[in-house]
Amino acid sequence: MTMLALSFARVCSGLAPFRTALRLQPLRSASGITVAQIDEEVAKLLELKARLGGGDDGKHQFVLKTPKGTRDYNPKQMAIRERVFNTITRCFKRHGAETIDTPVFELKETLTGKYGEDSKLIYDLKDQGGELLSLRYDLTVPFARYLAMNKITNIKRYHIAKVYRRDNPAMTRGRYREFYQCDFDIAGQYDAMIPDAECLKIVHEILSELELGDFRIKVNDRRILDGMFAVCGVPDDKFRTICSTVDKLDKLPWQEVRKEMVDEKGLSEEAADQIGEYVSLHGGMDLAERLLQDPRMSQSKQACAGLSDIKLLFSYLQLFQVTDKVVFDLSLARGLDYYTGVIYEAVLTQAGVAPASNDAQNGSEESVSVGSVAGGGRYDGLVGMFDPKNRKVPCVGVSIGIERIFSIMEQRAEAAAEKVRTTEVQVLVASAQKNLLEERLRLVTELWNAGIKAEVMYKKNPKLLSQLQLCEETGIPLVAILGEQELKDGVVKLRVVASREEVDVSRSDLITEIKRRTSEA
Amino acid sequence: MTMLALSFARVCSGLAPFRTALRLQPLRSASGITVAQIDEEVAKLLELKARLGGGDDGKHQFVLKTPKGTRDYNPKQMAIRERVFNTITRCFKRHGAETIDTPVFELKETLTGKYGEDSKLIYDLKDQGGELLSLRYDLTVPFARYLAMNKITNIKRYHIAKVYRRDNPAMTRGRYREFYQCDFDIAGQYDAMIPDAECLKIVHEILSELELGDFRIKVNDRRILDGMFAVCGVPDDKFRTICSTVDKLDKLPWQEVRKEMVDEKGLSEEAADQIGEYVSLHGGMDLAERLLQDPRMSQSKQACAGLSDIKLLFSYLQLFQVTDKVVFDLSLARGLDYYTGVIYEAVLTQAGVAPASNDAQNGSEESVSVGSVAGGGRYDGLVGMFDPKNRKVPCVGVSIGIERIFSIMEQRAEAAAEKVRTTEVQVLVASAQKNLLEERLRLVTELWNAGIKAEVMYKKNPKLLSQLQLCEETGIPLVAILGEQELKDGVVKLRVVASREEVDVSRSDLITEIKRRTSEA
Repeated sequence: MTMLALSFARVCSGLAPFRTALRLQPLRSASGITVAQIDEEVAKLLELKARLGGGDDGKHQFVLKTPKGTRDYNPKQMAIRERVFNTITRCFKRHGAETIDTPVFELKETLTGKYGEDSKLIYDLKDQGGELLSLRYDLTVPFARYLAMNKITNIKRYHIAKVYRRDNPAMTRGRYREFYQCDFDIAGQYDAMIPDAECLKIVHEILSELELGDFRIKVNDRRILDGMFAVCGVPDDKFRTICSTVDKLDKLPWQEVRKEMVDEKGLSEEAADQIGEYVSLHGGMDLAERLLQDPRMSQSKQACAGLSDIKLLFSYLQLFQVTDKVVFDLSLARGLDYYTGVIYEAVLTQAGVAPASNDAQNGSEESVSVGSVAGGGRYDGLVGMFDPKNRKVPCVGVSIGIERIFSIMEQRAEAAAEKVRTTEVQVLVASAQKNLLEERLRLVTELWNAGIKAEVMYKKNPKLLSQLQLCEETGIPLVAILGEQELKDGVVKLRVVASREEVDVSRSDLITEIKRRTSEA
Repeated sequence: MTMLALSFARVCSGLAPFRTALRLQPLRSASGITVAQIDEEVAKLLELKARLGGGDDGKHQFVLKTPKGTRDYNPKQMAIRERVFNTITRCFKRHGAETIDTPVFELKETLTGKYGEDSKLIYDLKDQGGELLSLRYDLTVPFARYLAMNKITNIKRYHIAKVYRRDNPAMTRGRYREFYQCDFDIAGQYDAMIPDAECLKIVHEILSELELGDFRIKVNDRRILDGMFAVCGVPDDKFRTICSTVDKLDKLPWQEVRKEMVDEKGLSEEAADQIGEYVSLHGGMDLAERLLQDPRMSQSKQACAGLSDIKLLFSYLQLFQVTDKVVFDLSLARGLDYYTGVIYEAVLTQAGVAPASNDAQNGSEESVSVGSVAGGGRYDGLVGMFDPKNRKVPCVGVSIGIERIFSIMEQRAEAAAEKVRTTEVQVLVASAQKNLLEERLRLVTELWNAGIKAEVMYKKNPKLLSQLQLCEETGIPLVAILGEQELKDGVVKLRVVASREEVDVSRSDLITEIKRRTSEA
């Protein structure tokens, strides 16, 4: 009998009725056990756990909080969020994208084998019978699954939705376990680098429009990385893991990255040093040209294909007028397994912000990074992984990570003590005397039915002063005041909150008058 | 040794290396077992399960699908969904609501004890270490948690987001496991029935604006139900369970509901029959007045309080001009535990649709129901459940369930063979000859930078015909055609797709001309 079995005996002896219940389920066969049976035992154990009180000490302290790494959005934060979404959506639509939506969870196996070392960060759902499910980790894999499932071979779509990663949250820096991604992807067999360039144009447009300060878009290509690894003498089976280590260059200095390559991943010091030389390079089209002449690099067909495409990409980026912000940077790796060609990442580079630690390495004032706000690349193999016949659909896309953008805009709104309105109410229907609730409800109904945004206070007899205060606090520009005299005269006193100016408006003209005044504003 | 323990021994003996791993973890103490230890054992079992291959037979067949009870939205469906959301959001904003957002999952204990018999339908996340989490089941409990956590005592907010229920899906009828709710709630201590009436006004406005055909809004009150149960002789401890049974009257005929009460829930036949008389009643303010005089019903203080409030509610509904659609219906129960006062539910009542089965019972042609599309009520105790000092915040709200509404609108769009545009592109930048890719990219950049929604085909040398076809297919109204002659003359040929009319526009006037033409459309 194993320790495990003994432990269960002990558990059960403490809970006699429960033990009896367990005995009611004999196993069907003496040899081997099925998954269904394991499920049953697990369910019993978890039930037992629930009976123990949900905590190790059996005591229960109710905690009022959101789950680790998540947050609520209050109305002010939502107002800022909506502005950001509107800017992003407007840009995606300007570039002709349709939109789709997919479920928040996928079959677990849909996500399996797509994220490399990051797979451990996937949230699984509890097995409550039926399918095994996981929360989506990004919007790219669900998109590829959608294309394969519906046999779509070309589409330009955006998708704005939450994704989930069991990462170490750093919420003040905008890193959450639940966060939005705003994805734009182009699927289809097209001429090289045209869609890829449009993705970069989109990042450029969005980051410019959001006025987040200066930014850089780093560009590289998986084929250049792989070619570089090959010519530096990295063994084939170490490409992916060395690539993951290079990906840490935005957080760690070169010396630490080199140490991981040599000590942990068993790379030779010579290979690591050769890589070190390449990953310190960054530039533009000229760098791509230079590397095409590089005696080592030019030995790799893959690298040459990547470098030629980088050249072509830059020629389109010139036409799109975005080369001012784009840097060809050989240290850019990106962790996800599914990229096959061009990759890119946008970072904000604001003065006055603590520099990222890889600064020392490339010695450039350009890379005073406050973190990545967008990233993406080409993934020509992913859709094929879902197709029974492995039919490929070439794809390229970009994902804008907006939590970090929200953080910046929130901090700014706070610093500027900016008054953010959280409703759009145009008129408060108020009364100057008692016993006018019915009249107020009648009038507000007229306004609502005419499409005017209006409110009443939910009190039978609110004071005029508190009604006016409500307007000041929430930014309602107009008050429609009813009093006995006004009712007798068939008018409403319309008050402009900002100027305190008041004017009697005949009841029949009121809606036109309110519309006139609020469309002006 | 229990069967459970024996079964584990058997599991382990089948997998020698795994068994060894299990032995490495001795228990810390000989008496008692902790929750953490159970967690460990569960994790081991699930790992074992994974090794067994994830299926009972060990074979693996990859299935390309969304999880049971969920769906993707394609671009056409999204276009319809956006229209519905816009109508609903516009109404919520017209009534002065702010918006908030909460995480898709909550601490498991936040949801515990809030949903009565429905709790079994909650999705739990797998215990991967850390907090125990569940997907939200509605937006009401997260809202109450939000209020308590932030000590907010009054707010009018809307929240449009997905919720999750492990229910039996019936997707053709718009019943999903992942679905949107559009919630509007008013929290705060106000004068009776004013916010409650506004919630019904909102349902009336939204269902009218969406033009879904005729509808009814059924209204009742938890206190009337409880009072009714008391005067009919239902024992106190059976109120909730009998209430759940009454809730089935929209799906089952009275005879079956009666049977469940008597046979399954052990209610006396006399009590059941008395309930049967009451729940067949429906009417308006007059019915509330009659029941206040009812010799039995009037014995219950609770029922009288509820009936007086129904009267007051109807008086406000008259002012709001919505009594045409509202019915006071004693058979309306609503399953959720947290309601304390007024409850309501809106159903579409379309001729030509199969009648719901409770029709026979109340014999009304009004209730030819195609199902509930909105529901809500007053829940004055829920926020207090989250407050350490049990401070109450009275709340009333309504939830619009839009999957069913989508289904109807989708079917309609299909039936009408309606052409739904899925992008908003205004101009395709096209070329009439070869080798003009650069010129097209230069022009489309000008248009994008001017805020015009524009596209190019991602081909070096697309045929003019295929460029024009793209416009026909996707509804792009204008084509800006470049040719060598046009480039020489400094003009662009602007073609109206619908009329095939073409006109040369000077390059400097192009943006103004496109804006003029597309703002007209």
